[in-house]
Amino acid sequence: VTAPHDRAAILSIGDELAIGQSLDTNAMWIAERCTARGIRVVEHRTVADDLAELTRAITELAARVPVVIATGGLGPTADDLTRQALADAMRESLVEDPQALARLEEIERTRGRTLTPQRRAQALRPMSARCIPNPNGTAPGLAATIAAERHACDVFFLPGPPREMHPMFDAFVAPALRPPGGRVVRTRLIRTFGLPEADAGARLGDLMRRDANPLIGTTASGGIVTVRIRAEGEAAWADAATDTAEAAVLAAVGDFVFATGERTLSEAVLDSLRARSERMVVAESCTSGLLGAMVGAIPGASDCFLGGYIAYANTLKRMDLGVPLRILDGPGAVSMEAAIEMAQGGLRRNPRAHHALSITGIAGPTGETPGKPVGTVFIARASRLNNSAHAPVDARRFLIAGDRDDIRERSAVTALGMLWHHLAHATTPKLLWQIAP
Amino acid sequence: VTAPHDRAAILSIGDELAIGQSLDTNAMWIAERCTARGIRVVEHRTVADDLAELTRAITELAARVPVVIATGGLGPTADDLTRQALADAMRESLVEDPQALARLEEIERTRGRTLTPQRRAQALRPMSARCIPNPNGTAPGLAATIAAERHACDVFFLPGPPREMHPMFDAFVAPALRPPGGRVVRTRLIRTFGLPEADAGARLGDLMRRDANPLIGTTASGGIVTVRIRAEGEAAWADAATDTAEAAVLAAVGDFVFATGERTLSEAVLDSLRARSERMVVAESCTSGLLGAMVGAIPGASDCFLGGYIAYANTLKRMDLGVPLRILDGPGAVSMEAAIEMAQGGLRRNPRAHHALSITGIAGPTGETPGKPVGTVFIARASRLNNSAHAPVDARRFLIAGDRDDIRERSAVTALGMLWHHLAHATTPKLLWQIAP
Repeated sequence: VTAPHDRAAILSIGDELAIGQSLDTNAMWIAERCTARGIRVVEHRTVADDLAELTRAITELAARVPVVIATGGLGPTADDLTRQALADAMRESLVEDPQALARLEEIERTRGRTLTPQRRAQALRPMSARCIPNPNGTAPGLAATIAAERHACDVFFLPGPPREMHPMFDAFVAPALRPPGGRVVRTRLIRTFGLPEADAGARLGDLMRRDANPLIGTTASGGIVTVRIRAEGEAAWADAATDTAEAAVLAAVGDFVFATGERTLSEAVLDSLRARSERMVVAESCTSGLLGAMVGAIPGASDCFLGGYIAYANTLKRMDLGVPLRILDGPGAVSMEAAIEMAQGGLRRNPRAHHALSITGIAGPTGETPGKPVGTVFIARASRLNNSAHAPVDARRFLIAGDRDDIRERSAVTALGMLWHHLAHATTPKLLWQIAP
Repeated sequence: VTAPHDRAAILSIGDELAIGQSLDTNAMWIAERCTARGIRVVEHRTVADDLAELTRAITELAARVPVVIATGGLGPTADDLTRQALADAMRESLVEDPQALARLEEIERTRGRTLTPQRRAQALRPMSARCIPNPNGTAPGLAATIAAERHACDVFFLPGPPREMHPMFDAFVAPALRPPGGRVVRTRLIRTFGLPEADAGARLGDLMRRDANPLIGTTASGGIVTVRIRAEGEAAWADAATDTAEAAVLAAVGDFVFATGERTLSEAVLDSLRARSERMVVAESCTSGLLGAMVGAIPGASDCFLGGYIAYANTLKRMDLGVPLRILDGPGAVSMEAAIEMAQGGLRRNPRAHHALSITGIAGPTGETPGKPVGTVFIARASRLNNSAHAPVDARRFLIAGDRDDIRERSAVTALGMLWHHLAHATTPKLLWQIAP
């Protein structure tokens, strides 16, 4: 009975989840909490409100892991079959829980209603199960132990609505979990910008071996590659192993790392600027405000972010940023020259700004011109030299993969990344998607 | 081999999903599309990047249903084990696909790199499987048939990133599905702006009965209430029933409806402007570009969207939009007066624009002042009268619920909604969150 909960499975129950009408956020929420306690989540499963399938899922998972945490299907309507399925899996019959019944009657009384047979069914539980109180709703949860072939499996069933489920998990399930003795899981994220995922993999090499502990993996999203360290073992060892692994990861890809943990590129840039008491502006064409929106999303951005220009039409490029007609009529609005003028124009109009980022490109799906396919984006950074009016410009040409949304988002992230590399290292390497200079 | 795909299972693969670090949105997206085709989704399963567990999951699901659709684990790094797991489940070895290899080499060539062994592994497939082209990424998908005990199961493996997965599903998987004849599910969305969800529910009344077919439900997100119609039955009946239900919904809430289907508020506004040959600009403070980004996200926005100003700092409000110091020093940057001046300033600087939208507010978490709690947002719309310089302003005060992200996004959507109501109906009702005038 007191075997540790070294592995867990999560079960989500409901037609609306199975048919794709609602997004399941409960499984992730529970998985995160199990992982943090050193319990390895080996599976999430989602099934519809179908008695036979639900019973089978409970039985299969109980045979596989020592603890199952389930959500959904505990309500008062005809499609809530979780109680019966659990009883079937336990080969027990349902009985009425007197305390749960009293609580249901109390709720109905305060609402000026009488308890209908449908609602009363929420007080049912398998004979040997216990009810878990639900302070924020009518349906109690259920806790039980299922005797599987080789072990006993503890199962916890909670209601689906997160505002009912979360406090019930924290108050009842979490204290009942038995994480494997001493064993914990430590995770750490290290975030890089501008390095292709395959190159990150090549640099990390053997660090990414699948049988290693700590286990190291990567995920890529919009130019940002996140390296994930996961150490499992006794707490002091896991802490030290995570630190050692982090040092190894930094040695391999450190020149592209902008943050450890959940910090975004916008936060890293704003922190760098704040440390130097410097301020930035933006001048955006094809991203039309996305870069400004990313920076302004961070609380306290106003310390270092002044704002900028959405120079979508050429008139705004000319009137607000001073891009000369000879550039708009010559190399064009999507050109290295235009990006350079936009960045310098942004600085010129804002004497209090130290850095300007500009973006002009072809986000598609149409608009390509000879030599400039969809995805062609020019990004420039202008930074004042010693607070003077003189501002050297770093301008680059990119060919960014993806659809219109991808190209816009990756352009904005890349502009931020160019500023971050400049602030952090004074130089900026050749970046993902860069094709010139 | 040609048995219908009457039931499906969905498999999501990845450590980051299993341990609760990332939210899985792919399973819902795929489930929705299967359901719409009349294919019953009986299970979603999520497993970690573990070869043995992955192989077992594929084998179990293939034995249970005639079609499995999986996402994730196809990348170029060592933790991408899906190809091997599928080969193991099929009891086949991996071979290199010549076309997939040629495409990988071509991608590397255009990026000016040579193909590393790691990246080359993405061209591997089980002997009898086929590769699914991936127009938006490097990793091809895989299609195969697994011989289970009593039937053959068609399996489709797609990359995890939604922007790669979605077009591959639409182009390759959807046409390969064999829905059972007869029953279909028809869904239709009707989208409203500015009506609180409870008011929409009250207006819809009995149309929302839970035992009805078509079933009508509402979901609310950021000021937009979407009414969803879902009819299940024989195709001709379901089509007619959906049309009838749509007419009833429009009769109930039509004055707030801006679109039928997936169309966004930005698209509705741009279509309205295009029909009138009119153009708009934006002047944003607390949203810092989000409104411009929403409008510019729509392909072809440049017909009607000129751009605008991210007037985050007061200097930009003053210099670029001409907001007088007496307003900034008096009622302040977050005031009805400032919003009015920002909108008029945006129009003044852009003689070709017909409409300007301005937003200034307190997005939090800090920054509240006496009488102006977090969530206080002033939004103004200025529209030229008969193409003259004279532009009457509609300015309103809102108290918007939510955290910083919510307040910013809802502010941008509300500004768009104000313009949409003006263009569509010439008048704008009192809107959700509006507290004055």
